Amino acid sequence: MAKRNMHQATMQSSNSPQPALRTTDSPEESPGNKDSPEPKEELSPGAEPAEEAGEGSEEPRDEMTLDINRFRKPGEKTFTQRSRLFVGNLPVDIPEEEFKDMFAKYGNISEVFINRERGFGFIRLETRTLAEIAKCELDGTVMNNRPIRIRFATHGSALTVRNLLPAVTNELLEQAFSEFGPVERAIVVTDDRGRPTGRGIVEFANKAAARKALEQCTEGALLLTNTPCPAIVEPSEHFDDEDGQPEKLLHKTQNTIRNES
Amino acid sequence: MAKRNMHQATMQSSNSPQPALRTTDSPEESPGNKDSPEPKEELSPGAEPAEEAGEGSEEPRDEMTLDINRFRKPGEKTFTQRSRLFVGNLPVDIPEEEFKDMFAKYGNISEVFINRERGFGFIRLETRTLAEIAKCELDGTVMNNRPIRIRFATHGSALTVRNLLPAVTNELLEQAFSEFGPVERAIVVTDDRGRPTGRGIVEFANKAAARKALEQCTEGALLLTNTPCPAIVEPSEHFDDEDGQPEKLLHKTQNTIRNES
Repeated sequence: MAKRNMHQATMQSSNSPQPALRTTDSPEESPGNKDSPEPKEELSPGAEPAEEAGEGSEEPRDEMTLDINRFRKPGEKTFTQRSRLFVGNLPVDIPEEEFKDMFAKYGNISEVFINRERGFGFIRLETRTLAEIAKCELDGTVMNNRPIRIRFATHGSALTVRNLLPAVTNELLEQAFSEFGPVERAIVVTDDRGRPTGRGIVEFANKAAARKALEQCTEGALLLTNTPCPAIVEPSEHFDDEDGQPEKLLHKTQNTIRNES
Repeated sequence: MAKRNMHQATMQSSNSPQPALRTTDSPEESPGNKDSPEPKEELSPGAEPAEEAGEGSEEPRDEMTLDINRFRKPGEKTFTQRSRLFVGNLPVDIPEEEFKDMFAKYGNISEVFINRERGFGFIRLETRTLAEIAKCELDGTVMNNRPIRIRFATHGSALTVRNLLPAVTNELLEQAFSEFGPVERAIVVTDDRGRPTGRGIVEFANKAAARKALEQCTEGALLLTNTPCPAIVEPSEHFDDEDGQPEKLLHKTQNTIRNES
């Protein structure tokens, strides 16, 4: 793991640290987990965050140092559309170098695009998690008195697959759809016990491949196993269940809706 | 932002860094983004990861130092079930202190539970993103010649809400469901343009509250606005679309299925 670096205490953050809010322990809860059928949880006496606040540390920690290599997983494709961030509310005159430098610490970057007129940009990081870290740390950073806004860009070439047999693995799914074009990610969705749900996600590297897969699987039949059970393929919809619709955005979205209806 | 710390170069990782795999640029792609209606993307000449690899840095970077306070968002509840990690394949004799120390760098911890007999544990971190970082960096860490396995614990008290009017915000959703018990997170799911989908997620702090909400909304009618449009409430299912069903787990899950059928 990365060498720790917890003695520096810097407070450059615009977010004030939050006190631990309520956390309720639910002994009757059963985390149906792949590796553990319903363990009974003894709750440690010090289960209240308030008491645990100092847990495992003598000095206050305001920084964590991570080993970037741990965020590069063997076999994981890099610089995919899943690792692509939209950056809004940028200073209109931001130099490309300054934009790149903001993300430089999160590993390598790719496909940098800036629209200075409209004050937004796009950038790809190596992996999804690195992009999540950058999003979380940089979102709301104040530049020229305006907080920049960072979100994941919509994946333009993702498909949902249904009717998959239990024997289908991520690897088989990827292999089968690679005939239509480069696959960025193929996942057989499992339930909370690791059992396949029959649903899958296939993310292509470009729209053309996604379109081709969609057409050929709709007109013809794609068999992933030697059982006559054709996969049902549909375009994936992109939803935001992270930020959702907060008050502060309501007015904006209401206008959007009004303008479009 | 956190003070950078890129001059140290440590390679303690068990994952070898991956070279950038293919990334295909898709100019026809239209990232339908809240803040930007379909920008045309000029692709910078250096859009190939290979060329960008050194981007923004003169020396190799293997560490990133993050300001933990940036991962504590105002208003975000801490130590929720969403920030709860399952840790499997632990050394059977692991001391609680050693277990806690593994997670100490990621901020404060709570609700530490270890089952030594079966070699697994649970732990809560302050926020979801901090838990994601810990999961990504620690998953696969070899202890006593076995890689530990880290996953998010299933949220035992989550509900899906449908039939929400466009005027309903995260805040209103939380307020409305708080009458049944402590709400950890309430999100009105939006589409890729920020328009509400009519669906919402409500995560309670305990099962009792979720059950109460489920019962009362099924028997009676919960109105979030003064329009007679009752919310439809169902238990949320937990799916894994991150790891899915890789080859290496197939045998295991097949057995599970066989044993259960």
